[in-house]
Amino acid sequence: MAMSRSVTILGSTGSVGCSTVALIAEAPPGAYRIEALVANRDAVGLAAQARRLGARLAVVADHGCYGALKDALAGSGVEAAAGPEAVVAAAARPVDWTMAAIVGAAGLPATLAALARGGVLALANKESLVCAGQIVLATARAAGATLLPVDSEHNAIFQALASRGAGADPYATVEKIVLTASGGPFRTMSLADMAGVTPDAAVKHPVWSMGAKISIDSATMMNKGLELIEAVRLFPVPEERVEVLVHPQSTVHGLVQYADGSVMAQLGTPDMRTPIAHALAWPARMAASVPRLDLVGLGRLDFFAPDPVRFPALRLAREALRAGGGATTILNAANETAVGMFLDRRLGFLEIAAVVEETLARLGAPAAEDLAAILALDGAARDEAARIAAERAAA
Amino acid sequence: MAMSRSVTILGSTGSVGCSTVALIAEAPPGAYRIEALVANRDAVGLAAQARRLGARLAVVADHGCYGALKDALAGSGVEAAAGPEAVVAAAARPVDWTMAAIVGAAGLPATLAALARGGVLALANKESLVCAGQIVLATARAAGATLLPVDSEHNAIFQALASRGAGADPYATVEKIVLTASGGPFRTMSLADMAGVTPDAAVKHPVWSMGAKISIDSATMMNKGLELIEAVRLFPVPEERVEVLVHPQSTVHGLVQYADGSVMAQLGTPDMRTPIAHALAWPARMAASVPRLDLVGLGRLDFFAPDPVRFPALRLAREALRAGGGATTILNAANETAVGMFLDRRLGFLEIAAVVEETLARLGAPAAEDLAAILALDGAARDEAARIAAERAAA
Repeated sequence: MAMSRSVTILGSTGSVGCSTVALIAEAPPGAYRIEALVANRDAVGLAAQARRLGARLAVVADHGCYGALKDALAGSGVEAAAGPEAVVAAAARPVDWTMAAIVGAAGLPATLAALARGGVLALANKESLVCAGQIVLATARAAGATLLPVDSEHNAIFQALASRGAGADPYATVEKIVLTASGGPFRTMSLADMAGVTPDAAVKHPVWSMGAKISIDSATMMNKGLELIEAVRLFPVPEERVEVLVHPQSTVHGLVQYADGSVMAQLGTPDMRTPIAHALAWPARMAASVPRLDLVGLGRLDFFAPDPVRFPALRLAREALRAGGGATTILNAANETAVGMFLDRRLGFLEIAAVVEETLARLGAPAAEDLAAILALDGAARDEAARIAAERAAA
Repeated sequence: MAMSRSVTILGSTGSVGCSTVALIAEAPPGAYRIEALVANRDAVGLAAQARRLGARLAVVADHGCYGALKDALAGSGVEAAAGPEAVVAAAARPVDWTMAAIVGAAGLPATLAALARGGVLALANKESLVCAGQIVLATARAAGATLLPVDSEHNAIFQALASRGAGADPYATVEKIVLTASGGPFRTMSLADMAGVTPDAAVKHPVWSMGAKISIDSATMMNKGLELIEAVRLFPVPEERVEVLVHPQSTVHGLVQYADGSVMAQLGTPDMRTPIAHALAWPARMAASVPRLDLVGLGRLDFFAPDPVRFPALRLAREALRAGGGATTILNAANETAVGMFLDRRLGFLEIAAVVEETLARLGAPAAEDLAAILALDGAARDEAARIAAERAAA
């Protein structure tokens, strides 16, 4: 058997974290040794995972949950810690492999701490690449860390890029990277009907089961805009060679077109355990008890071009990428703010993109080259987006 | 630029040979140096290719075409030769890369000669693996030669296998290999109507433009049976883990399913230049001016299970594989004989498979471990198949 791989999971009790824990639990005994498990507030869930996997350390980000964690770990021999500094310290412990699955900008300091000590980082937190792409990439480069994408589309493209040619520049023959999009619940809805969409209707994703924020992003296709930005940061291909293809069955997750006409694609049932298992075992592969793809059962796969009129988010993401500087930070912050207001019924569905576009127009693309500058710009963009939304409501 | 690669093309004036020549002609100058071009009888076409690419040697298999070849090469500085021995001698000249594209059993001696001196052999001649698989593989192994499949399905699977994991046994996590099949022109025809099919109707392939023999094989799906045998010989996966999927658009050429649920697929327009270019540049990739895949234009891809009642050829191929020995040699010989008789209107369409099945039943699976034994078995199977067909006609 291969040597044991030491592992830390940041965001252990979330959806990606739980799947990671489940895959490790079904791997051959001794294949993985758990250094640290980190959660936000779920002390009881975290302690159960730590006991199950025999972790050395369990950390809750929220100081207030420390007592509950200590109690739940009593007699287990698992070390307990709490607070944001403890999260970063846990991430900085030397391990072979880290899952970065803390949601949102909150995950950034721990992600950077994990990257800074090298090794392999499985990245399930797309905000870090969208808000702070340059810093994340520079940190990884300086430490010689390897970034493995866990988002199903980017993981698919990573796998399809394994077929790139050897040679002086193996990416020279990569003509095109294609991200697929389910198209969300309003794929075929008219613009007039989209204007009246409610949060309840928008959170119902046709294929993936996800949280409210990402479901709205899927409905506006801003999720694909963020993934476009992620792709350009992860893969050495310029923005104009990254395309989006609407594919309602979400079976083909990503494609890479090469200069000889070959298109390599990764397919599978929509199940996050597959990309997580890929990252967990990389550069080998492991077994995962996910339902297998059944193309005969599916019968057909459909493909459409995205509609730029009803779904302006892709254009906004491309514009932010081209603008450079902190524009993608602004895009992400404005979108989070607008989506929050939509969920609170303070903004219409079609206004989400309008608020993002106006925020980008007002703030431009100021340089944001360190974490402090990025966090400041993120805050400024949230304020501006809220102001714009309020103006629109008053108008 | 990479070093110049020396190349020999066996079957240079055929369809695959012409595509290979065209790709070399569009490659950067100096990327390929042509050692030998070999054809059967087309002296004028061969001489034109040899002049165009600056080949050192041009060979016609037919002695009677030597004069025409000499005349056509006058003043070119290209050496001319003729006859089966000259073909084998040309194949045995040391080169980096050989295209083995002589059709049928006639290509076997030259293919073996090329394999015996090592290097990379692009294999477009599927008969060699079906009739003489063990000898071909043993010759390649002994010489340290690399076999690259050029058949679009096998080339697709070869590319999809690039995503297999590293590790002690990188094929341990390959769960399934899937060959796609267009289903041929009678995919949706009833068994009753298939009984009355004429050669003219059967040679009209819905997607690929091909010769008469392979078109009939596509219509009976015996082509996929032969490809199933080819796949089991080429890839370290047992027969029961190789599946066939009917996919009328012939856009997905092959798929590999891994133990983590990932399915890697190669897609492209149905154009032989893509797999040839892949083999020609391997392990790098080259540019090829083939039409690019347009999934939006296609709109949809369909998948069906093959019908074992109307298309028994797949079952016969599996049975021959399981029987071992020379059974696949018998299958291929009986099929060639039966297809020839169908094209001559001496056998009904549905009787092709019936003759193959009966030939297999009568001859069993005798050992055939050297080329002489295989050629003898091939001849015996052809005789038996013709006899069975005559009996059926008389009955």
